Amino acid sequence: MSVDRTLHHFPLDPASRQVRLALGEKRLVFAEVQVRYWEGAPDFLSLNPSGITPVLVEIRHERRTVICETRAILEHIEEQDPEPALLGRDAAERAEARRLLQWFDRKFDNEVNGFLLHEKMEKRLLRLGAPDLAALRRGREGLRHHLAYVDGLLQTRDWLAGRRMSLADFAAAAHLSVIDYFGDVPWQDFPAAKTWYMKLKSRPCFRPILADRWPGLAPAAHYDDLDF
Amino acid sequence: MSVDRTLHHFPLDPASRQVRLALGEKRLVFAEVQVRYWEGAPDFLSLNPSGITPVLVEIRHERRTVICETRAILEHIEEQDPEPALLGRDAAERAEARRLLQWFDRKFDNEVNGFLLHEKMEKRLLRLGAPDLAALRRGREGLRHHLAYVDGLLQTRDWLAGRRMSLADFAAAAHLSVIDYFGDVPWQDFPAAKTWYMKLKSRPCFRPILADRWPGLAPAAHYDDLDF
Repeated sequence: MSVDRTLHHFPLDPASRQVRLALGEKRLVFAEVQVRYWEGAPDFLSLNPSGITPVLVEIRHERRTVICETRAILEHIEEQDPEPALLGRDAAERAEARRLLQWFDRKFDNEVNGFLLHEKMEKRLLRLGAPDLAALRRGREGLRHHLAYVDGLLQTRDWLAGRRMSLADFAAAAHLSVIDYFGDVPWQDFPAAKTWYMKLKSRPCFRPILADRWPGLAPAAHYDDLDF
Repeated sequence: MSVDRTLHHFPLDPASRQVRLALGEKRLVFAEVQVRYWEGAPDFLSLNPSGITPVLVEIRHERRTVICETRAILEHIEEQDPEPALLGRDAAERAEARRLLQWFDRKFDNEVNGFLLHEKMEKRLLRLGAPDLAALRRGREGLRHHLAYVDGLLQTRDWLAGRRMSLADFAAAAHLSVIDYFGDVPWQDFPAAKTWYMKLKSRPCFRPILADRWPGLAPAAHYDDLDF
């Protein structure tokens, strides 16, 4: 069946990256529209009243469906194109993958992105002035706490949610990859997390992520290096 | 099939209430454990390392599954017990219900609960002192903005996500019902929202919610009144 997909996204948005990774892993072709979400363009607000990326627009059998917000898009993709399965194959695997999706999208977002990405990225995009050093420090402390959690899980599991790669890995990698763009992930202190990230980084679905560049925001030197 | 369910929840937690409403609507019987989530009890943290309610523990065929976090539980219930369907019957209905789930759990939570419930409920539970009047005002302004959005949707739709009642209605009602416990919802200014809430309030699944009382926090006089 021919499906026409357009993803409205911002390249350095962890939520958008989760969807790009899932679409890529399932080899679903999509057109891209890059959104400067902070500008609140009326066209984009008419797609998603929350003003937040990502938004997926699908046309199937001439029927257009607008799917807003990461979790809605990820669950939709999984329902429409179940193979390869990215949410696990039984109830326990799915529950664990979804628990971790929530972990990264709320807890990691609150405790790390709200400080680190706000200070290093949003303030520059929105011209809000220099980063606040205390906030940066708090974000880096939060990041170490979360890396320790990820590293601990990966000492007894092949992938974050268990034996199989899942959306939980994509959620974590999407968040960490944006922070890595700014060179702020202390990989050397978390060897299990580093090995896991190397495995993900070398998958074909990760290539477009590593090719992302945003004007005025240069990535760290090792950002697209597969052997970092 | 006999399934043994235990829900670990806090009665005045909007996330927990969403799950109680969904279980109630599907007539799935469950035991309850009330959790004082702010105390960080080790037993509860061993169930859910994020320390957040709700957590559903299910035993099916002697196999125990722990499902943490609202969205994971709601999607799990829908997969295991699909009737009555609470996520819509086609892709567009499901996308719209899930968009609104995200709206309430992130946007409403940030813009309303983070001020109003924090000041009126959490500060009392955690003995953090008197409410901050500026924060209360900000929460009330956020609430009016969200009520206007809900009211607008309900002027052209029977239920929030469209023609059928869905988890989106339960998410909105769960959030609003906790604020209503404290008497802070200006229903009279939003007649479509008020009519919708009356319909929900009179459903059997809502009865346990209306019976909730927490020591030291008395509900507003009209809280359990079906004709408010």
